[in-house]
Amino acid sequence: MDQAALYHRPDSEMAFIYTRNEYHIYLRTKHGDVAQVKLLFGDPYDFEFDEKGQRKWNYQEVAMIKDAETLNHDYWKLAINIPQRRLQYAFWVEGKDGEQVIYDDRRIMPYNEQNLARMDCFIVPFVHLSDEKWAPNWVRQTVWYQLFADRFANGNVKNDPPATLPWGDQAVHPNACFGGDLAGLIKRLDYLKDLGVNGIYLMPIFTAYSSTKFDTVDYFSIDPSLGTKAEFKQLVDELHKRNMRIMLDGVFSYMSDTSLQWQDVQEKGRASRFADWFQIRRFPVGYKPTDNPDIAYDLTYNVHGNNPHMPQLNTANPAVRKYLLGVAAYWTREFNIDGWHLEYAAEVDQKFWREFATTVREINPEIYLVGEVKHSNQRIVQPGKLDGVVNYPVTEAITRFAANKELSVAELISVINDQMALYRDQTNEVMFNAVESHVTQRLLATCHGDSSLVRMILAVTFLQIGTPSLFYGTEVGMTNQQAPRIYQSMIWDEDKQDKKMLRFVKVLTHFRRNFAKLLSYGDFQWGPRSNKYNYLSLTRQLGKHQVFALFNFGYTAIKFVRPQNSRIILSQNLLDHEEKIGSNGFLIIELTTQG
Amino acid sequence: MDQAALYHRPDSEMAFIYTRNEYHIYLRTKHGDVAQVKLLFGDPYDFEFDEKGQRKWNYQEVAMIKDAETLNHDYWKLAINIPQRRLQYAFWVEGKDGEQVIYDDRRIMPYNEQNLARMDCFIVPFVHLSDEKWAPNWVRQTVWYQLFADRFANGNVKNDPPATLPWGDQAVHPNACFGGDLAGLIKRLDYLKDLGVNGIYLMPIFTAYSSTKFDTVDYFSIDPSLGTKAEFKQLVDELHKRNMRIMLDGVFSYMSDTSLQWQDVQEKGRASRFADWFQIRRFPVGYKPTDNPDIAYDLTYNVHGNNPHMPQLNTANPAVRKYLLGVAAYWTREFNIDGWHLEYAAEVDQKFWREFATTVREINPEIYLVGEVKHSNQRIVQPGKLDGVVNYPVTEAITRFAANKELSVAELISVINDQMALYRDQTNEVMFNAVESHVTQRLLATCHGDSSLVRMILAVTFLQIGTPSLFYGTEVGMTNQQAPRIYQSMIWDEDKQDKKMLRFVKVLTHFRRNFAKLLSYGDFQWGPRSNKYNYLSLTRQLGKHQVFALFNFGYTAIKFVRPQNSRIILSQNLLDHEEKIGSNGFLIIELTTQG
Repeated sequence: MDQAALYHRPDSEMAFIYTRNEYHIYLRTKHGDVAQVKLLFGDPYDFEFDEKGQRKWNYQEVAMIKDAETLNHDYWKLAINIPQRRLQYAFWVEGKDGEQVIYDDRRIMPYNEQNLARMDCFIVPFVHLSDEKWAPNWVRQTVWYQLFADRFANGNVKNDPPATLPWGDQAVHPNACFGGDLAGLIKRLDYLKDLGVNGIYLMPIFTAYSSTKFDTVDYFSIDPSLGTKAEFKQLVDELHKRNMRIMLDGVFSYMSDTSLQWQDVQEKGRASRFADWFQIRRFPVGYKPTDNPDIAYDLTYNVHGNNPHMPQLNTANPAVRKYLLGVAAYWTREFNIDGWHLEYAAEVDQKFWREFATTVREINPEIYLVGEVKHSNQRIVQPGKLDGVVNYPVTEAITRFAANKELSVAELISVINDQMALYRDQTNEVMFNAVESHVTQRLLATCHGDSSLVRMILAVTFLQIGTPSLFYGTEVGMTNQQAPRIYQSMIWDEDKQDKKMLRFVKVLTHFRRNFAKLLSYGDFQWGPRSNKYNYLSLTRQLGKHQVFALFNFGYTAIKFVRPQNSRIILSQNLLDHEEKIGSNGFLIIELTTQG
Repeated sequence: MDQAALYHRPDSEMAFIYTRNEYHIYLRTKHGDVAQVKLLFGDPYDFEFDEKGQRKWNYQEVAMIKDAETLNHDYWKLAINIPQRRLQYAFWVEGKDGEQVIYDDRRIMPYNEQNLARMDCFIVPFVHLSDEKWAPNWVRQTVWYQLFADRFANGNVKNDPPATLPWGDQAVHPNACFGGDLAGLIKRLDYLKDLGVNGIYLMPIFTAYSSTKFDTVDYFSIDPSLGTKAEFKQLVDELHKRNMRIMLDGVFSYMSDTSLQWQDVQEKGRASRFADWFQIRRFPVGYKPTDNPDIAYDLTYNVHGNNPHMPQLNTANPAVRKYLLGVAAYWTREFNIDGWHLEYAAEVDQKFWREFATTVREINPEIYLVGEVKHSNQRIVQPGKLDGVVNYPVTEAITRFAANKELSVAELISVINDQMALYRDQTNEVMFNAVESHVTQRLLATCHGDSSLVRMILAVTFLQIGTPSLFYGTEVGMTNQQAPRIYQSMIWDEDKQDKKMLRFVKVLTHFRRNFAKLLSYGDFQWGPRSNKYNYLSLTRQLGKHQVFALFNFGYTAIKFVRPQNSRIILSQNLLDHEEKIGSNGFLIIELTTQG
């Protein structure tokens, strides 16, 4: 057995309370190397004394289940019930070579009576409620729709800025304005309701310098080009009336250099009352510009990237924390919002997020907090901090596999399974799965205009654990060949909309919501697949309720005999009376238990 | 190469800021499997554009150093400087079989140009001051002395309880009283100063039910049998005058069932104003007793162990947190103490420890917080929580190897190295290394009365990274053959003291303090060793300053040629003109650079 590959981390994503008394434990072993694993566990204080007066710990021994496989590892899982909310445990591992070992808190040793009697168990002294990682349940039932208000719908031409472009204009530049606003969004809520999405992830709306509004000037006001607070209140009310949710976008790592705070620092230097609001290395603040206005050198202050117009906020300063937490509390309390999407969350310190989460959860215990983080980040989703992060590693793997052909089927599955292993189950259930967003190229462009491939990628994504998100316009076939961060105006002209895509997305969103319980809590298992023929399948199961999906990303049609007790939920490119799945074809079926 | 054994965890004990701009990175590989590792790292925003306009990340490539080996793993380390306080990195690993891979944030892939260009690096977006793990520097220079005031010295017979036993009485039972007190301790400070210890870890002194005072009745008073607050203030002042520190013992997980709070709950049940102070499952509070008064069944409330007299406090209740944090603040502020030793720390929730640390550090930023935790516990020493924990895994391994002969030399080294890998370097530097304490048997008893073995074990322990601690009386040869938690009265009768041990301990404490910098910050490497002959050696090195130690736990004398540029600091059982080290012999030498 490969003992060097055995890995367990107590009190982490590998050992945690899932619901009130259900504790989940994982063990990682080398792929294909281990025949069986048993968990030895019990109450640390449950002792008996034998005839010799020796103290003997009473423990149970239960087989763990191989839950996931990757190219390098197998993950073994067991869910146990601990009503006493305390626990100690060790692993008994048997290699395929017959070697048997005990893996405890201190070492790996041969499995025998003597070593069983002297185990130093992993210990869970007591699981407190405040140490639990919780995630709002409604998120698991949500399909998100991400949009820029300026690019979505224009409901009030009176608030259009002077240089507003005509709707649909293709000559879009980063700072273009299209006149879209909250009033326009309100008018289109029934469209969204009909589309089947039930959560709006609204890109930044606070007063900002640029049209995409990532460079906040005033966190307490809505950008005049988008509307008023009254309209925003109306938007939230109208959404809630429709059982829909709203998530705001917060950029708390930096402000615009046109903000009054930074302007004051520029003017007064060290004497500014905002001098300690930013991360200033030395005064005066300044930099050496380059040809690119967003890149500078020799900066005397910390910035986002190398952008001199985005000075980083100093969240170590209690005044800054108080101000930003006040912002969070204000919008959460006064406007009753349901979530915060937190840009560049990993650039802000952990203490701030803990205080942020505490602040907004006191107002709305069901609020959803998701961090925009590109890399793996286990600390930011610890209990008491954020609920989840944007799941780039998983959605990018899907695109790289399906559209860019950079990953094989086996690599795709391996990357996804390894990523799922980084977080607690309840975190995975509310990870933000956005295969297309403001930081990606348009999915249709990535797929070189192949809309059948877009549909497959969306279907694969919606079947993953996590809360799925659509980017505005995907459903009507919006695309571009330009830089990824150029956001065009929504296509409302029905003649220009991709009707087939629209019908497809409606079926997909309704499927995801009707099967929300299964798709959130259900077991996930990859099924038959082939690197050579480039197809893969997966099963989601909760109790007797099962969904099976098969995707053919290859060039060769594949046979599939559909079980009698099944019905097709969604399909594409089925051939020969539904007995074959063609290239770029797929099928999602529901299996019902008979009798 | 064994890819399944590669392990790195970003933003953890394997990747952290050590001092202001020095970042430490570790990688774990299978033992003996990997030929070399290089870290590829740089500023995430340091890009150049090549002639084709392709963006190219500027990174450095630096070889990592094999820092530690265990039976299963090798640990590779690199300390790098990141003045910009942001970083991204990946590993280039070459197996002894010649295989070369890139290990990044998402997967392991072959090392080649194409994959280098598409790495998904581990990312450190920004290291904030509040995310740093800090530990008070004075702890690294401290040798602790742990004592029970009741058992150490009687300075005031007037406060002796009625049933006080004569000093030195062997008929000790768990609840015996010897009359020792703070006044006695004050009188013996010069003894302690002369002994060379410079930190007193004082077992619980708050008013309690039992004589060992682990069952607190009133956190705001000193047990009358030990003295007064004025005497405690005098003790702290006298210690500080001598450049010595004091650490109090806090039991915050439960209270005595004789406390007014629990008595009120027993009397009034749900109507008690303290009903929510404890973890009560259902009213009325009660249990089914057994023959053992400390063990009960069918408890209707959570307790420490199964002891009905120790009801667990409910730290989820803000009133309880406020009360206990008030206790911590009171003793820290009013009496200017230097540290808190926190009993059963892992039974209390993480949120409490974060608030505890914040509270006392606001009063005394240099305070030392150490948790009494028997198992590995990585969460409790995260930034913003405790500084360290009691290092049982390391000290128990030393005893099990040296006294119980349960571990081989190779196993000892493996266990210690694996344990060191669980925590950040700065945490290891302030781990509490108590080879003998109130929860162990007397070391001399464990060594079956062999005091030369006790000296060797102490010397091995004092050479480890971490702050060493002595248990009162070890230095004069105190022992017992009784249960580990029976604490006898200190031997002050010089005729009964082990003079040789006393002289040895004085040399050892002075060595540890004179070499504090080297022994805290210096590199640690195990040297020549033998399972067969049961000897081991180690080197500590800081710059050109080096200490080498060789311990012969075997039966055969071993030869040792001492370098010319060395001097013996401490030794035992040297034979043949210091050219051989006998059984149970050892030597610690200092090597000085010549010229």
